[in-house]
Amino acid sequence: MARGDRYDVVGFDADDTLWRSEDSFREAEAMFVELVSPYAPDGIDVMDSLEAIELDNVPISGYGVKAFALSMVQAAVTATSGNVPAKVLGRIVDHAHDMLMEPVELLPGVPETLAAVGRTHRLVLITKGDLVHQQRKVRTSGLDHHFEHIEIVLDKDADTYRRILDEWGIDPTRFVFVGNSVRSDVLPVVEIGGTGIHVPYHITWGHEVVDDHDGGFVELEHITDIPTWLAD
Amino acid sequence: MARGDRYDVVGFDADDTLWRSEDSFREAEAMFVELVSPYAPDGIDVMDSLEAIELDNVPISGYGVKAFALSMVQAAVTATSGNVPAKVLGRIVDHAHDMLMEPVELLPGVPETLAAVGRTHRLVLITKGDLVHQQRKVRTSGLDHHFEHIEIVLDKDADTYRRILDEWGIDPTRFVFVGNSVRSDVLPVVEIGGTGIHVPYHITWGHEVVDDHDGGFVELEHITDIPTWLAD
Repeated sequence: MARGDRYDVVGFDADDTLWRSEDSFREAEAMFVELVSPYAPDGIDVMDSLEAIELDNVPISGYGVKAFALSMVQAAVTATSGNVPAKVLGRIVDHAHDMLMEPVELLPGVPETLAAVGRTHRLVLITKGDLVHQQRKVRTSGLDHHFEHIEIVLDKDADTYRRILDEWGIDPTRFVFVGNSVRSDVLPVVEIGGTGIHVPYHITWGHEVVDDHDGGFVELEHITDIPTWLAD
Repeated sequence: MARGDRYDVVGFDADDTLWRSEDSFREAEAMFVELVSPYAPDGIDVMDSLEAIELDNVPISGYGVKAFALSMVQAAVTATSGNVPAKVLGRIVDHAHDMLMEPVELLPGVPETLAAVGRTHRLVLITKGDLVHQQRKVRTSGLDHHFEHIEIVLDKDADTYRRILDEWGIDPTRFVFVGNSVRSDVLPVVEIGGTGIHVPYHITWGHEVVDDHDGGFVELEHITDIPTWLAD
């Protein structure tokens, strides 16, 4: 019996699993540091300020480009005691709007992998983040036809996966989920009785790193390894 | 036969149908005008700038407080040619974070109406806006236990209602939806074969006003009129 026979549905995360996402946040941070540092007093690391403010704001404004942009404005004003020129803040907001419009850059082998897995399994997409941005990315990715269901959620914990699978009539024990985040894509799926496949991305956001895990899930190097893993 | 027998499910919009929402945008706009106007050249109406920028940004950043805050920052910089102090922009962003944390203020008679309608019909909630903010409002409203399903969507057009009702297994012809926006809550529901009940709110956002409609839906003055309408 092939491993794939144990599953009805294969779910995928999107950001940094199907397409690049973190890279453009890293680029925006580099721009932020370059634009704002000249107005900060000696000894103030504007990147530290941004990270602290971002972490404070997550429960209030969530993830995504808009929340990130508001944190950048707040951090720039705070770290420079209001000395940053308004035009710099205008550029930060303009850049955030550019990020929201950026074309999706698929990761290598993604369309072929979805086509291959889609021949043997039903596919769903569960992604975290901002509705307007995620929906634009899904629509412009050219991948949406592969998925029977697409859900954009605020946070990916066990309750969220349980609710969604229940709504879609999917048995968690016959569900495997693929993503780049151990914390959001793997552990909660394992918790509800499913299988998680971790496909690491070269950048992992600090907030997503899990220090201690002792298996219970699968680790593959590339998304393109999934068809072979299922057929094994 | 009571009118209510024609329906299995009663759906509700949330913002300005179950709880106040537009008021706090209007208050934020008044604050924006007060804070930014002193730095704008004579003859520049900062509120006009904000409205123009908001309308441009809707397809990029969507609805909701975070998109609104980014538009306020952009409009303040543009309308003052960068002369607005950074601290004013910081206050605008802080105010947006306050808006995201504001306690929900229910409209009069809402809990009683949901309890009454819930005795004879299944209830669902379909609301438009920002995931993190809407989810917080739903959770803190004390109303979420009334609803069998809750969906937060980017935009409420006929396709959106069709997809959601299909996913929930609800027959559109046996579905009635209640909301304050003719454009988002009533017309698309009528288009897919359902019934729309318009309960006007005293403020309607410019973008939501429909100039021309010739019926095909119900207009009630207060949400508390619904149990009687169904029983009639």
